Amino acid sequence: MQDLNLAYYGAAAGAIALLFALATLASILKESMGTPRMKEISEAVQEGAMAYLNRQYKTLIPFTIVIAILLVVVLPLLDPRVKGVPLCISFLVGAVCSAIAGYIGMNSTTKSNARTAEAARSHGLGKALNVSFRAGAVMGLSVAGLGLLGVSVLFLIYKDAVVINSFAFGASAIAFFARVGGGIYTKAADVGADLVGKVEAGIPEDDPRNPATIADNVGDNVGDTAGMGADLFESYAATTIAAMIIGNSIFGPKGALFPLVVGAIGIIASIIGTFFVRTGEGGNPQAALNVGLWATNIMTAIGVYFLSVSTFGNKEGFGIFLAVAAGLIVNVAIGALTEYYTANNKAPCLRIAEASKTGPATNVIHGLAVGMESVFLPMLFFAAAIYFAFWAASFVNSTHAIYGIAMAAMGMLSTAGIVVAMDSFGPVADNAGGIAEMAELPPEVRQKTDKLDSVGNTTAAIAKGFAIGSAALTALALFQAFADEVMRNPKLQHLLVNGHLAINLNDPKVLIGLLIGAAVPFLVGASTMRAVGEAAFGMVNEVRRQFREIPGIMEGTGKPDYARCVSIATGAAISKMIFPGLVAVIMPLIVGFGLGALSLAGYLAGLTATGVLMALFLANAGGAWDNAKKWIEAGNLGGKKIDGKPNPVHQAAVIGDTVGDPCKDTSGPAMNPLIKVAGTISLIIGSVLFH
Amino acid sequence: MQDLNLAYYGAAAGAIALLFALATLASILKESMGTPRMKEISEAVQEGAMAYLNRQYKTLIPFTIVIAILLVVVLPLLDPRVKGVPLCISFLVGAVCSAIAGYIGMNSTTKSNARTAEAARSHGLGKALNVSFRAGAVMGLSVAGLGLLGVSVLFLIYKDAVVINSFAFGASAIAFFARVGGGIYTKAADVGADLVGKVEAGIPEDDPRNPATIADNVGDNVGDTAGMGADLFESYAATTIAAMIIGNSIFGPKGALFPLVVGAIGIIASIIGTFFVRTGEGGNPQAALNVGLWATNIMTAIGVYFLSVSTFGNKEGFGIFLAVAAGLIVNVAIGALTEYYTANNKAPCLRIAEASKTGPATNVIHGLAVGMESVFLPMLFFAAAIYFAFWAASFVNSTHAIYGIAMAAMGMLSTAGIVVAMDSFGPVADNAGGIAEMAELPPEVRQKTDKLDSVGNTTAAIAKGFAIGSAALTALALFQAFADEVMRNPKLQHLLVNGHLAINLNDPKVLIGLLIGAAVPFLVGASTMRAVGEAAFGMVNEVRRQFREIPGIMEGTGKPDYARCVSIATGAAISKMIFPGLVAVIMPLIVGFGLGALSLAGYLAGLTATGVLMALFLANAGGAWDNAKKWIEAGNLGGKKIDGKPNPVHQAAVIGDTVGDPCKDTSGPAMNPLIKVAGTISLIIGSVLFH
Repeated sequence: MQDLNLAYYGAAAGAIALLFALATLASILKESMGTPRMKEISEAVQEGAMAYLNRQYKTLIPFTIVIAILLVVVLPLLDPRVKGVPLCISFLVGAVCSAIAGYIGMNSTTKSNARTAEAARSHGLGKALNVSFRAGAVMGLSVAGLGLLGVSVLFLIYKDAVVINSFAFGASAIAFFARVGGGIYTKAADVGADLVGKVEAGIPEDDPRNPATIADNVGDNVGDTAGMGADLFESYAATTIAAMIIGNSIFGPKGALFPLVVGAIGIIASIIGTFFVRTGEGGNPQAALNVGLWATNIMTAIGVYFLSVSTFGNKEGFGIFLAVAAGLIVNVAIGALTEYYTANNKAPCLRIAEASKTGPATNVIHGLAVGMESVFLPMLFFAAAIYFAFWAASFVNSTHAIYGIAMAAMGMLSTAGIVVAMDSFGPVADNAGGIAEMAELPPEVRQKTDKLDSVGNTTAAIAKGFAIGSAALTALALFQAFADEVMRNPKLQHLLVNGHLAINLNDPKVLIGLLIGAAVPFLVGASTMRAVGEAAFGMVNEVRRQFREIPGIMEGTGKPDYARCVSIATGAAISKMIFPGLVAVIMPLIVGFGLGALSLAGYLAGLTATGVLMALFLANAGGAWDNAKKWIEAGNLGGKKIDGKPNPVHQAAVIGDTVGDPCKDTSGPAMNPLIKVAGTISLIIGSVLFH
Repeated sequence: MQDLNLAYYGAAAGAIALLFALATLASILKESMGTPRMKEISEAVQEGAMAYLNRQYKTLIPFTIVIAILLVVVLPLLDPRVKGVPLCISFLVGAVCSAIAGYIGMNSTTKSNARTAEAARSHGLGKALNVSFRAGAVMGLSVAGLGLLGVSVLFLIYKDAVVINSFAFGASAIAFFARVGGGIYTKAADVGADLVGKVEAGIPEDDPRNPATIADNVGDNVGDTAGMGADLFESYAATTIAAMIIGNSIFGPKGALFPLVVGAIGIIASIIGTFFVRTGEGGNPQAALNVGLWATNIMTAIGVYFLSVSTFGNKEGFGIFLAVAAGLIVNVAIGALTEYYTANNKAPCLRIAEASKTGPATNVIHGLAVGMESVFLPMLFFAAAIYFAFWAASFVNSTHAIYGIAMAAMGMLSTAGIVVAMDSFGPVADNAGGIAEMAELPPEVRQKTDKLDSVGNTTAAIAKGFAIGSAALTALALFQAFADEVMRNPKLQHLLVNGHLAINLNDPKVLIGLLIGAAVPFLVGASTMRAVGEAAFGMVNEVRRQFREIPGIMEGTGKPDYARCVSIATGAAISKMIFPGLVAVIMPLIVGFGLGALSLAGYLAGLTATGVLMALFLANAGGAWDNAKKWIEAGNLGGKKIDGKPNPVHQAAVIGDTVGDPCKDTSGPAMNPLIKVAGTISLIIGSVLFH
């Protein structure tokens, strides 16, 4: 199988990306951390973040072992054809790679926050962007590099895409907990710090007197960086493998290897793209980031065009190129729509701000309405992209159509390197601002970091759209791969119609699977919302206690017990991620083994549809509430205070923003790994289902 | 076709129910209306309600004419086999019957409010329950009676269940607007009256000095009575016809007529059931209503058992009886779950109340979490009932399975007469309380009507569960009937696999239909939420203006301009029902004609799944917020005031309740007709789709 050599390209590109990431990290570490106070704060944040990561992964060890045993012992008992050892090894490698990506990224962002603040202080905006974006690039390229390297090497060893899907399963099992745990952590700390610090004690954000301030900064890293990184690592691995499975079943090895090379092109383009991100003093950091993103997209498209035509011939190759391009385009479109529904100079957000004039209730009502409205156009775009990708991939043979959706997903994710870089730079800038405040640097430093931070909010919105969009396409690719896998299951041959698995909505088994699947995102949404509410309640009580019991804390003479707040947030996040995590992992098993393959297929479809809808609804409602508040704080509708008294319009907007916090940063993001983990599990058990 | 005689049973039972309703109405009109002041207020409410209904139906005339022309002119052009005239006539009869049911019911409830108050004043609780429940029974039996009579007579004339499906389409087109318009009206008036009257001016609810108080009472009737009545009339008609279509295709005329006789049994049982609803002074009205409901359920079950066995033989007949019973049981189960998630002595509601201690934001977060959580178990129940009904109906022949779901729906809806009666009595009691307040009757009268009103809140919750559950089962029955219809379309024979329509989720057309359909409930939810927000804003401004400009209004010497508020609510409701209405009606046409029958099937499945989820989410979140507030108002967590000052815990709960108002009374209920109207339209166009 000489074609197999192509997998070396994937492995090589993955290794290059990883080496580039490590070299970048080394170069960042050479930058100055600034004053001893800055160093001290940065180290406290890093310590908290690492403590959280350690505890999170430690908690997941028994869970991982149980699954590993199931894979290596129980599955082969159910079906002797199952290769238990490779499945188990791939699973463990996936889980470990996800953890490694988390550690590298977290190291990079937490070690760059003080360095970014120092760069802003000693050198200016351009250097600050440079340091913070390079920190993000370490995360982005670790995610994509480890993903591509892992998949390629495992494929070179086992030569079977279905077996190595277990790598994606390992990644997705970790990702769900990382997303949910990180999401609970960040919002518990944020709400706790804000409610007591800003509202009750009246001290500014990031004030060192606030006991929850370190926890808040840790939260930015564990939620926004580690959670998002794990999420996209999972998408990357799962999409690549799903595309390989489908490609193999249609085209043989050539179809299986093509996605790896697309990944290689995207990763190299991302590395080059990072060099386009530069700006000078007074420059526009957003424009610099956009240039980097567009350069990456265009280079990827050109590379894929030539690869595709040379692999599949002119006609079919062009069709497959179009499918990949559809993925790149839908990425841009979803980003633009996310921006429209949440940006604070656009109608939806202004409507929420206006509604704050009649109080918090109307603010919340209009925010819910904006969130609900915001799902419709993205879903139409998805539908159009799916249809287009199917159509384009069937230029030569209509049975090739399903390769289109997988390649659209692959197209979108091939640029994950730079998208994650753009997203991860945000928390670094945010942290840098916090350090500038806590270390009492001159106000112009904070102004510079604030400028970067506000750009970070926009790139975070784009990355959120990317995470949702890629999760949706990944889930669809997994769904197709699952159907493909079930077709091969000798025990399920009676389900085939004309040699294909018909997942007929007229079949009650499919229908009830669909209904159950559609309900699960609501259950996970509910449990994560409650988790934040309860964790924040604990944090509020602790901060109140410290203000009350530690003498001189408000005067700056008593030192707050930061570590206790960090520990509370960590404990709450870890303990409350368990229930939704079990729902995510166990429900597909119950449906699959209890009701069979057709119900499981219905489950995946229902889960994906409502999962994506809820992800968009919650993320956009939260984003719009947040920006409505920021718009008022910028001095509109009376601003924060009127005649020295709190402006009730602003107070109403703050309530909306607080409601939106768990929506956009905990429950909404939990939907992405939820729909993907179901897909990877289904693919694993697809060959051993009985009925 | 001697079997056709069975349809006369349906017609006869329908006619009996109608006559019984009219006789009941006549007997109510003989009761005293009390003092001249009570009469005056009651007449003002009646006038406002009738003015709204007139304007609503008048607005719908052009829309109805356009559809009638499409049916009689355009459809036959697309396919000459289409019988345009019968379709058009059935459609118009359906629309008119829906309007007649609305008028009879509205007449009954608005003419009974003062009479209920007077009964409470002169006779006591037992008599007050008797008058108000009889008023509800008029509505309930009109709905069921007109539904059964209309379907039976049209079937006797046209002998074709597919043609008379247009009757259900007529009913559903009206129902959507009645539900949405009524929902916007009632909440605009309610929020407007409360925000300015209760919160700003500090006067009690239903105080005659509040200019919006008549509009508020009108709203109870047009939203809760007319909207719910139209909703269930539609479910009744659509389910009966879908069951007839499926039954005809499986069993021939016997299968088509069976649902009509099940309807006849249910309606006669409902009439008898109303006589069980009696209580004395100091008695428990809830228990009396429960006895009536259970008596009806049991009588229906027994009657259907004997009918089923004699029609289909022992084995198959028992299976079909079980399917009907599954419908009756799921009704009870959904009611119980609704009760659990919203009742103010159960954990979910108490959690929201507790969360109010940390302010409105945490109250809202926990309310959203309760709403999301509350969808899961009902969906599992639906799934179980669907599976059970399919299984039971296939005892003899597995191809008979799809009759099961239709008969489960029919079983649930056969008792609509008494369920609507129980629901409609609530607004009468509510209005009676308002009249007692405005006419300054002694406080013990208000205590009695309050007792009835609080029972009304529980029955409303049960009826809401019933409306959602029946809409879900109706939509599924319509979905099956649609698939059946498409199978007969000569232009769509290429879509059949083994002679059946395979709606394969692997097919991109089905998949994109599913995704689009799943997104539509969010769009309709958004537009109805916004509509309430904007309409309430207009009402707030008007009430504020009257308080400012009418001299002596607060002292009771200046008379508020009630009519102006009524007119504002009417105008807002009418103008804002158009957009969601068009979305509901036009989207299935776009998907069907633009993308074809398979996409339309996917659309129906996606729409139904998220529609039901959103209906449950919004209704239960709203109900739980409402009852959390009531629990605090009952004196818990400090009650309304602490040391004469407003209790912030209560204020937070009031904000949650206000957010919940449009959720539970406008956007949530809009989901039911949304999913049904798509089904009836699809069924109409199923035979003329091209691709």
